Amino acid sequence: MNYPDIEGPSLLLRPGVARGNIWAMSEKAKRSGTRFRPHFKTHQSHAVGRWFRDFGVKHITVSNLDMAEYFAEDGWDDITIAIPVNVRQIPRLNALAQRVKLNLVVDHPNAVQHLGQKMTAPVQIWIEVDTGDQRTGLSIDGVSLAYATTKLINEHEHLTLVGLISHGGHSYELVNSASTAQKLYSETMETMSRMRDYLKGYGVEGELELSMGDTPIFSMLNEFPGLDEARPGNFVFFDQMQLEKGICTLQQVALAMACPVISTSFDRGEVVVHGGAVHFSKDFLVHPVRKSYNFGMAVLPTTHGWTPNENHFLHQLSQEHGVVHLDSIEALIHIQHGDLMFFLPIHSCLTADCMGFYDLFEEGQVTERIYTMKGNAQLGQQMKSHA
Amino acid sequence: MNYPDIEGPSLLLRPGVARGNIWAMSEKAKRSGTRFRPHFKTHQSHAVGRWFRDFGVKHITVSNLDMAEYFAEDGWDDITIAIPVNVRQIPRLNALAQRVKLNLVVDHPNAVQHLGQKMTAPVQIWIEVDTGDQRTGLSIDGVSLAYATTKLINEHEHLTLVGLISHGGHSYELVNSASTAQKLYSETMETMSRMRDYLKGYGVEGELELSMGDTPIFSMLNEFPGLDEARPGNFVFFDQMQLEKGICTLQQVALAMACPVISTSFDRGEVVVHGGAVHFSKDFLVHPVRKSYNFGMAVLPTTHGWTPNENHFLHQLSQEHGVVHLDSIEALIHIQHGDLMFFLPIHSCLTADCMGFYDLFEEGQVTERIYTMKGNAQLGQQMKSHA
Repeated sequence: MNYPDIEGPSLLLRPGVARGNIWAMSEKAKRSGTRFRPHFKTHQSHAVGRWFRDFGVKHITVSNLDMAEYFAEDGWDDITIAIPVNVRQIPRLNALAQRVKLNLVVDHPNAVQHLGQKMTAPVQIWIEVDTGDQRTGLSIDGVSLAYATTKLINEHEHLTLVGLISHGGHSYELVNSASTAQKLYSETMETMSRMRDYLKGYGVEGELELSMGDTPIFSMLNEFPGLDEARPGNFVFFDQMQLEKGICTLQQVALAMACPVISTSFDRGEVVVHGGAVHFSKDFLVHPVRKSYNFGMAVLPTTHGWTPNENHFLHQLSQEHGVVHLDSIEALIHIQHGDLMFFLPIHSCLTADCMGFYDLFEEGQVTERIYTMKGNAQLGQQMKSHA
Repeated sequence: MNYPDIEGPSLLLRPGVARGNIWAMSEKAKRSGTRFRPHFKTHQSHAVGRWFRDFGVKHITVSNLDMAEYFAEDGWDDITIAIPVNVRQIPRLNALAQRVKLNLVVDHPNAVQHLGQKMTAPVQIWIEVDTGDQRTGLSIDGVSLAYATTKLINEHEHLTLVGLISHGGHSYELVNSASTAQKLYSETMETMSRMRDYLKGYGVEGELELSMGDTPIFSMLNEFPGLDEARPGNFVFFDQMQLEKGICTLQQVALAMACPVISTSFDRGEVVVHGGAVHFSKDFLVHPVRKSYNFGMAVLPTTHGWTPNENHFLHQLSQEHGVVHLDSIEALIHIQHGDLMFFLPIHSCLTADCMGFYDLFEEGQVTERIYTMKGNAQLGQQMKSHA
């Protein structure tokens, strides 16, 4: 049996690859004079967070309050919760803001009213601008609403307006080369700068900072003129979605799921692995040739990375089962029950969230299991000690 | 603010509705003389499992070994792991089989060889038959492989062949009425009985039991002639997928997700809630009228159930954000930041797996938070005690 120390399903993480990705991005931000505030929603892990600290990272982004508290416990003291504030959580936000420098995001005066009434500790406020993603953020056409928001912020002693923030979710659709990344970067900066100029024109005082997030732009470009803060996240692991768009190489992908073969059938010409929606999440791509769902491309481990395993891929996922489309029926001859197959996650953030742990994988060996915020470290351990 | 005790995102569970669903299904199995072995992968919770015990349930189904160990810890002692066995886990299977009556599933002689060589404790073996789902199980056309499997099982003293098992995953496609359910039930029973007769003809001794799983068939029918064991799971909660197929009523759906409004925009005519892929999972339906993705239908709580909230629904999910398609722009006037919106999960099993907890919801109040196997009970609690 190959890899006898892996029981599976297991999310393998190559520390060297992830650390390389962190190093490259932090160096790029340094050279460009842009504050690096990586998004920790991708890994959600104290242990991975410490790798960032090794490269001098001091500021972080998270996507909910649980995560902010979790990283504060590990000593992070400058945290942005980069989702419009959930005003039902103000008591917990107050508690956290007493311990760390807390940055909150708003995109409406209504949210500021709630904060103004109930925040008792100082927080930094960022106004979200919709730069084309059309999910959250104030529209550039609605500058009067942005102005009203700034006015309200300035009325409350615990709220300090710091700058404008954007999330370029649409970059995942638009960016597949350096030139498309450059175009989107310029458009985003233009929208944010225009909003800043408008607000200045209305009499808003102080120099508002500009903060931008998303992995495709920061992976493809090297210079970020005019930008104060960069918040990419996914780059620490990358995944198949980024790979297909040419945003990373296969050797930069730090994660793969190891799944044991539990069923083989010459009738169906397929293999089924233990590895389903509760492991991978149900994010998918459409396979470029087969036009079917693709929930993960099969790879084989090399000493320090991965190589494609023919053109096998997961074409169907149920709760615990993954059905593998085999490139050729002959491949079945060499696949036995209990063999491991390896698949790149389509979207590493969601896969890591589902799994709750990583098995650190170095030179063909699992060296350590580390957990995410949501991971339950007791699970599956009790019986192992009896075995 | 409505429902001040809910911070959200929160998965509300109505205990009365779930207990009613359990009662109805257990009564039906009793009347039909069929062993009821409910699938606990849907809820993954000790507390919900105990509700089944209140109705006399003694036999359970799970979908992986972690879950089998988790429920064994709570006193369940007759457990089927209804997925072809992962032979990498034999040491842990041996430990568990010493404590409980353990039922394993195989669909290939190769798996039996592994078990025969390494099992040191007695286990009951079920052979999976593919009755049309085409995911796992032996084909009725490959009866010689089934016979080889039985031969190998009988060679090993720790392995006892009990019967034939099937999973009707295709029922989710095919069943939308009592007559389609009856048709599929008859076809499935015919395939299983034929396989049993073939094996008898080959000389396999003893009366093999027949076990069938899936919620649509068992929800739509009242009699299960010839069947020894029923393994439905989803019926404990139901969800929007079942609702749309007419398999349950809105009043039988036990779960809804409460999500705080974090962004409102007249420009976009939309509301954004805190509630994304890490809460709901990314399972979706296609909205029958709008032809767009539907990640959850909006409902409003009534005293004991739910009522539709106009025709609002979640049409876009990212990691933490849910974008709500509003039935009319006028609805926006009445929606404020911090309001709660409620959505039915598309697929309750995956939503429960993502969330890790339930907030028991009775007469408009959250009475208790209970956790699933994967749930991390520490999360979000530490700071609350400071608040």
